[in-house]
Amino acid sequence: MAATARILDFLRDRRPEGPCLVVDLEVIADNYRAFRRAMPDTRIFYAVKANPAPEILKMLADMGSCFDTASVPEIEMALAAGATADRISFGNTIKKERDIARAHALGVKLFAVDSDEEVEKVARAAPGAQVFCRILTDGAGAEWPLSRKFGCEPAMAVDVLMHAHRLGLEAYGISFHVGSQQTRLEAWDQALEESKAIFDAMQARGITLKMVNLGGGFPTRYLKEVPGTGSYANAIHEALTKHFGNAIPETIIEPGRGMVGNAGVVKAEVVLISKKHANDNHRWVYLDIGKFGGLAETMDEAIRYPIVTAKDGDEKAPCVIAGPTCDSADVLYEKVPYDLPVTLTVGDEVLIEATGAYTTTYAAVAFNGFSPLKSYVI
Amino acid sequence: MAATARILDFLRDRRPEGPCLVVDLEVIADNYRAFRRAMPDTRIFYAVKANPAPEILKMLADMGSCFDTASVPEIEMALAAGATADRISFGNTIKKERDIARAHALGVKLFAVDSDEEVEKVARAAPGAQVFCRILTDGAGAEWPLSRKFGCEPAMAVDVLMHAHRLGLEAYGISFHVGSQQTRLEAWDQALEESKAIFDAMQARGITLKMVNLGGGFPTRYLKEVPGTGSYANAIHEALTKHFGNAIPETIIEPGRGMVGNAGVVKAEVVLISKKHANDNHRWVYLDIGKFGGLAETMDEAIRYPIVTAKDGDEKAPCVIAGPTCDSADVLYEKVPYDLPVTLTVGDEVLIEATGAYTTTYAAVAFNGFSPLKSYVI
Repeated sequence: MAATARILDFLRDRRPEGPCLVVDLEVIADNYRAFRRAMPDTRIFYAVKANPAPEILKMLADMGSCFDTASVPEIEMALAAGATADRISFGNTIKKERDIARAHALGVKLFAVDSDEEVEKVARAAPGAQVFCRILTDGAGAEWPLSRKFGCEPAMAVDVLMHAHRLGLEAYGISFHVGSQQTRLEAWDQALEESKAIFDAMQARGITLKMVNLGGGFPTRYLKEVPGTGSYANAIHEALTKHFGNAIPETIIEPGRGMVGNAGVVKAEVVLISKKHANDNHRWVYLDIGKFGGLAETMDEAIRYPIVTAKDGDEKAPCVIAGPTCDSADVLYEKVPYDLPVTLTVGDEVLIEATGAYTTTYAAVAFNGFSPLKSYVI
Repeated sequence: MAATARILDFLRDRRPEGPCLVVDLEVIADNYRAFRRAMPDTRIFYAVKANPAPEILKMLADMGSCFDTASVPEIEMALAAGATADRISFGNTIKKERDIARAHALGVKLFAVDSDEEVEKVARAAPGAQVFCRILTDGAGAEWPLSRKFGCEPAMAVDVLMHAHRLGLEAYGISFHVGSQQTRLEAWDQALEESKAIFDAMQARGITLKMVNLGGGFPTRYLKEVPGTGSYANAIHEALTKHFGNAIPETIIEPGRGMVGNAGVVKAEVVLISKKHANDNHRWVYLDIGKFGGLAETMDEAIRYPIVTAKDGDEKAPCVIAGPTCDSADVLYEKVPYDLPVTLTVGDEVLIEATGAYTTTYAAVAFNGFSPLKSYVI
């Protein structure tokens, strides 16, 4: 989680101007190896959306990773990084038919669906492709729960997969997502129980499903301790054995945050510290990065990043932390104020840790005239 | 509010691929003239952040507008559009000292402050400049209320302005912002009463303030009817007369949404329509634009845009509306579902009206691999 020596050296030597993200590739390599070691029978599809920096994709492609993509540009980035099309999944359940056709033309064979309508588009634009149906889970225990946007009720998945079969697609498997930053290990158990029921219902109709996509949800450590990769692997293995016995299907995982979250650190600067009235109990600390500069996941104060300063040994007091734009919604932590050193002053540098995932690409293109977050991959 | 004939012609003739914003300059020109007519004694500072398209800035500069800017790049854009530095205000209360110095070097003389700390930066980096102190208002009645991020309690403003005076700055005036999309006409009355009290307190200390910056907050019509510019002008004029009598100060306004909101229309496409289970009461309608593609102001369903389809004569039924990314937070309207025609199908075009403000620059730079919102100014 903490900034690595390589990151600190880079910041000290290069002194980049303005807020920036620095990502340490060695941490990502360690994470990849930890996933591979913990789940040797599971294929790893890195969720490109978490951080699509070309250096990251290239290294993971070289290490043998597969890629979960959300759009045609992400497919093209994975191919450019050296992944072959058979290692790429088009994992977004919401695709334009012409984008499915482009993915098909690029050789992609594996597509996510969660409705008859999407099955029909895939059948027309990518005939013969493999599809997996995403099912809804309740997402309890996740810090960034997934609402009901993706997936259908398990009872409907059988109909969707039978529809795919009838239209000449290969009904290949099931996917689910327990919710991002999921710390409740049992979350996978219920989803796998439901997956097994769908496998059985399909088998009764003469179709053998082959794959369970276990999704992402593997957490990064922010302020609170989280279980390690090994604990997740054990919980998932136990649930697979419990529900599938000795007929465990092919499995894949889609780590994004769990692969790159702890590999990145944002360097930012204190622009202003002020109070709203003479007796205000809380200082307002304004940074040169905020919700529209890459820290969008602070929305509703969902993700609470560790913030490190050079003065952390000094006494601390609660602050409201806000971004630099003229948008009043650009406040990071206000409902639950954040303790920062009382000696912190304007111009001080702060490090916002565990920001390797879902930061650079979330940044607004030019809101208030500010540039998007710069990124250095070392 | 509705798409103009020029916008509809442009979309029909050019058939731009992908989601895009089309802005009609003639609507903006009409809005500018309406503000000037309704408030002939007030200088208009267009809030560049609402939409910084060069064509818009150029036209407004030619018409005589001044510009409220949030950053050095916005100052540079206003200068490039032909505004002289004396027509530019650096209206962000959160500025790096080196950015104040750059603004000063570019000739900008008018700066916003709301704390002693910011006053000290301005005094060092822009000696002799004019400053106005932003005060907090409660924002009641605004659809996009402004929290407490900007401004200080009125009681503290006198101290801040006296501090500016002692450091050689010109204590020039007061600013406030009643909250964006403010429909309660009385909102300005309370803020002007507080402004007058600060004028009096400064006068008692031998300093004559000259200006009240009435801020923005002028609404665009989305789904609900809003009062016209004339009603706002009357309410403000009455409040000014009530509190300042025959010594009405210089006033400025900073319309952003009210200047460009109704001039733009987003063209989008239905990517998928599905249900979550066989008996689902709500269809899920997925568009190719969402919260990260430019419609960030749907956050908490705050702004409810009018959505127009070619099938609006048909029966309608409630839908959840979501964007195309793999982010479950990318849902536009779910708590209060949105009525759309039951005949709407995948591939249909929809027009999202009143999207001229706070859309293009809010778009994420590349989230999920999707391009930022394209913009055409005609």
